[in-house]
Amino acid sequence: MTMANTPSNSSSSPIEQYLRRLHAKYAALQEGRVADYIPELSKANPDWFGLCIATRDGQVYEVGDCRQPFTIQSISKALTFGLALEDRGEDYMLSRVSVEPSGEAFNAISLKPGTGAPFNPMINAGAIATCGQVLKQEGLSRFDRILACLSRYAGRPLDVDEAVYLSESETGHRNRAIGWMLRNFDIIEEEPTEILETYFRQCSIRVTCRDLAIIGATLANHGRNPLTREMAIDPVHVDKVLSVMATCGMYDYSGEWIYRVGLSAKSGVGGGILAVLPGQLGIGIFSPPLDAQGNSARGLKVCEDLSRDLALHLFATGISPRTAVRLTYDASQVASSRRRAPHPQHILRTSGHRIRVMALQGELVFSTFEPVVDLALKQAPYCRYLILNFRNVTSINDVVLKLIGELRSSLARLGVTMVICSADKFGKNLRHQGMDSLPQFKDDDFALEYCENRLLEEILGPGWRLDKPLTLADCLLFSGLTQEELAWLDLRMGLGEASQGDYLIREGETGDSLLILLAGSVDVHLASDTGQLGRRVNVFEAGISFGEVGLLDASPRSASVIAAEPVEYRVITRELFNSLDIENPSLKIKLLNNISLSLAANLRRLSIELTTYKG
Amino acid sequence: MTMANTPSNSSSSPIEQYLRRLHAKYAALQEGRVADYIPELSKANPDWFGLCIATRDGQVYEVGDCRQPFTIQSISKALTFGLALEDRGEDYMLSRVSVEPSGEAFNAISLKPGTGAPFNPMINAGAIATCGQVLKQEGLSRFDRILACLSRYAGRPLDVDEAVYLSESETGHRNRAIGWMLRNFDIIEEEPTEILETYFRQCSIRVTCRDLAIIGATLANHGRNPLTREMAIDPVHVDKVLSVMATCGMYDYSGEWIYRVGLSAKSGVGGGILAVLPGQLGIGIFSPPLDAQGNSARGLKVCEDLSRDLALHLFATGISPRTAVRLTYDASQVASSRRRAPHPQHILRTSGHRIRVMALQGELVFSTFEPVVDLALKQAPYCRYLILNFRNVTSINDVVLKLIGELRSSLARLGVTMVICSADKFGKNLRHQGMDSLPQFKDDDFALEYCENRLLEEILGPGWRLDKPLTLADCLLFSGLTQEELAWLDLRMGLGEASQGDYLIREGETGDSLLILLAGSVDVHLASDTGQLGRRVNVFEAGISFGEVGLLDASPRSASVIAAEPVEYRVITRELFNSLDIENPSLKIKLLNNISLSLAANLRRLSIELTTYKG
Repeated sequence: MTMANTPSNSSSSPIEQYLRRLHAKYAALQEGRVADYIPELSKANPDWFGLCIATRDGQVYEVGDCRQPFTIQSISKALTFGLALEDRGEDYMLSRVSVEPSGEAFNAISLKPGTGAPFNPMINAGAIATCGQVLKQEGLSRFDRILACLSRYAGRPLDVDEAVYLSESETGHRNRAIGWMLRNFDIIEEEPTEILETYFRQCSIRVTCRDLAIIGATLANHGRNPLTREMAIDPVHVDKVLSVMATCGMYDYSGEWIYRVGLSAKSGVGGGILAVLPGQLGIGIFSPPLDAQGNSARGLKVCEDLSRDLALHLFATGISPRTAVRLTYDASQVASSRRRAPHPQHILRTSGHRIRVMALQGELVFSTFEPVVDLALKQAPYCRYLILNFRNVTSINDVVLKLIGELRSSLARLGVTMVICSADKFGKNLRHQGMDSLPQFKDDDFALEYCENRLLEEILGPGWRLDKPLTLADCLLFSGLTQEELAWLDLRMGLGEASQGDYLIREGETGDSLLILLAGSVDVHLASDTGQLGRRVNVFEAGISFGEVGLLDASPRSASVIAAEPVEYRVITRELFNSLDIENPSLKIKLLNNISLSLAANLRRLSIELTTYKG
Repeated sequence: MTMANTPSNSSSSPIEQYLRRLHAKYAALQEGRVADYIPELSKANPDWFGLCIATRDGQVYEVGDCRQPFTIQSISKALTFGLALEDRGEDYMLSRVSVEPSGEAFNAISLKPGTGAPFNPMINAGAIATCGQVLKQEGLSRFDRILACLSRYAGRPLDVDEAVYLSESETGHRNRAIGWMLRNFDIIEEEPTEILETYFRQCSIRVTCRDLAIIGATLANHGRNPLTREMAIDPVHVDKVLSVMATCGMYDYSGEWIYRVGLSAKSGVGGGILAVLPGQLGIGIFSPPLDAQGNSARGLKVCEDLSRDLALHLFATGISPRTAVRLTYDASQVASSRRRAPHPQHILRTSGHRIRVMALQGELVFSTFEPVVDLALKQAPYCRYLILNFRNVTSINDVVLKLIGELRSSLARLGVTMVICSADKFGKNLRHQGMDSLPQFKDDDFALEYCENRLLEEILGPGWRLDKPLTLADCLLFSGLTQEELAWLDLRMGLGEASQGDYLIREGETGDSLLILLAGSVDVHLASDTGQLGRRVNVFEAGISFGEVGLLDASPRSASVIAAEPVEYRVITRELFNSLDIENPSLKIKLLNNISLSLAANLRRLSIELTTYKG
């Protein structure tokens, strides 16, 4: 038994325990016969038995003979079909090979009356026709390209079992007859000889049970190998490959297979079964003895158990896409981090509900995004700005890209401006939808700030920001102070000016002063992990004071404060602050009172935010 | 054009706009012929054309003739098959009717050689056999039960088009022949006459295009009608119904249908098509002219467009289940709301990482839960407690219920105690898994508190909580005060005691005192929406003071504080606090300083929590 790439506590994993029990349950099963139509295949050990699951994230669970090479045989048909689709396109391929189940055995010469098109690419006739459609490219033979393609699926360079290939070629007369029939109907355009040798070599490619699971995981992962991250097939063709596997992959057992097991699958006479639960995982089974229909006998039992025990049936997995709406709130609940003077702050408290935020999540497809469209239009009468936050979005399909553009137009007609944020990773796709002019921001904080500024301008008029510098009496820190107290402080406080980009406070330094901003605004940044200037966490406008905690306990500064524009400020040093204890205790008491109230107000604001995020 | 149950801004919805464009695109299509094998059907207007989408949440989009009644015909076969599965079980039904595509027309007498079992329940022979397996129950005829079942799917009482029924019955000789063949092979156990009349009536049930979409949404919603919330079919059989529709639902076009359209579907000669994207939505199409295979000609075109335009292909929807891990953190990042004395608080800051929380989300099935198992086992060496939070979990399937139990055992062997919270809604299911003894809590706060208490006991020994009442010097509010200052305060502060359940502070009352807890603990509760005692937001232990904000600004109390056990406390009234300005300003400055530092510490804690939740 091999165990690799598995969780560190593999012996403790209930998933591995289950797979080992399942392996033990069927290891003794004595049903079916090893294929013997060519001598090489009959050499397989009927006791070989491997089972492997690979998730679309690349987690691999292996039990049994998962590293024993064997020939891929008919399983290759599904993968070559995908390659031919890439080379020739949908319509061309459908004109050559149909996709209806034939109800007949794998080696029947099932050609449709009239056109001569094989019933489907999973029977020999269809597979040979498909093989003949793969193009030669840049000095690469058909077979070179097929081998490279299958190697991308498996995530490692595969090779051919030459003995099996020779054996296949020596005995493949029935397939040669099929090849000439295909030539007769012009399904293939050249003499079949080379195509047949390519087909025999394709069937003789060596894989392991683990390879099959990873090939399956690649199909489950929309064509990208989850371990190497390489694309094995253009994602637009993955659905077609999985469709044909679902209806025709298990020969004349296909209907019952979907009914009982419910996975897209393909079997081969080498004893392999490749099964896929689309979007979720791949399964590889290897056990050479075959049943009457040519499917691995143990493999069928194991897959039935797996599907039932792990609820992997396509139509019964219990997976329904969740709405893309993760959270909705408005700017009266969670405002931007811009701390404003009392008047604009008050306006935003009363009108903030006109800015709505919808935090989205997961994969945006029609079903998950439909509730977003519905909710956005229902909220439109009550709001002026709608922010869509893409931070927790993992993918956006073309349907939704289009819907986003159309939703924007619908909202605009209703007087609502749509704003998006945290969508950098989808930037190119969004641009393709002509959304260059859509207001886009790095994160929700910048988006909120933009909408707040616009809303304030709409309510207060365009000149609202051009106020003259504040007086000390305008500052919250000094509320309740008498004229005498203000004058007393005015004489003693320091005075500062700074240009855009200047540091007023540096993170990590010991706090020794409290600053009161009288003109301009400053940005508050946390250091990033690398010590560089990191995320902006606040903006303070004139009227706000900061640095009080460092003054109180001489702790290191928890963030850097940088002038966002030319600023004017006043400074209360520790020396001055401490001297108040003796020189002006009643003033000190008033200041501490105001500091406490401002901290309490921030605490209340954060509590509301926290409740909003915890949901 | 009818529009109902649609979003309020229906004219603005890009989804409705798209459906209207699609309707207009195909309204003029002149292909196919209205069925005329019975006179009643030939009366249908070939221009009737409705299309309707219903989501599994019950959102309905309708365009065109969605309220025009017509007979359900063969679409009923899929639903009666589900009813027969409920009555007879899987194995029995499979012994009577196979599930392989026949590749033949709908009215072929396709019986398997030997057994005489019809190929599948979607052809007439299989449908009649299936109809004969529905049981009579409690005075209800087979037909009564079929009509009731279909009405549950549609979410309204359906009825029969008696003229169509009479016409079907008068001309149904071929079906009578099939019935007697089934009797001959003992596929049905009684004379077929009554069964055939039931079958003719079943096919004559009247539905609308809207009904079909809702029937589809019911199947997409695992058998529960999304509008009435009634179960139409036991969820365990939904996958089988969808499987047979997928492989056999569109007659001998089924393979190409799955390939091109990729939906589970069933058509009827009345011109209806029922299509289902499992877990997501149902589609109803109504357009009487049929193509050569008996499928609605417009319906096929519309479905191909819908599948492509909205990316609804089963294997190409881009939906992959997301990991169930929403968020992970430890108790050093987000602690419980129990505010403790400095020493235990310090221990939890340094050892809190040994309590890990995994907040889970969405539907827990094998694929989404596998990463939880993997991560839990990887973290096991570094932690002592693992809290699984089910708050954002929407469903748990049986596989995962079992895995939870097994994971618990695996973790226990590694010395980790698993704790779950916010799982009340799954309580019954969890109990079935014998997890009664698993520590379960109402929410993550209670779970964290439990783990913190256990961890403290493990570190400090069992007696750590049995401390004697604190002295004033032990309280944070008084840190830095001299013995004289403490004695001065001791003389003037009020003294209080309360029993469990007594209110120390009532939400909404004006704050006029600050309380310092010396023994026991208190719970802090917010009022619920109904004004009742609501969510617990904090626990304060001895050494903590509270109520300072009300004292500073005389604002109404923001929460109620209730003794959780017998408590002793001291009181600083507003009168005393204000008198300090004159009588003892240096003491007042020390108190305000401590209040500010404590508020700043809370602010820092909340910021970290917020960062954790925002991710």
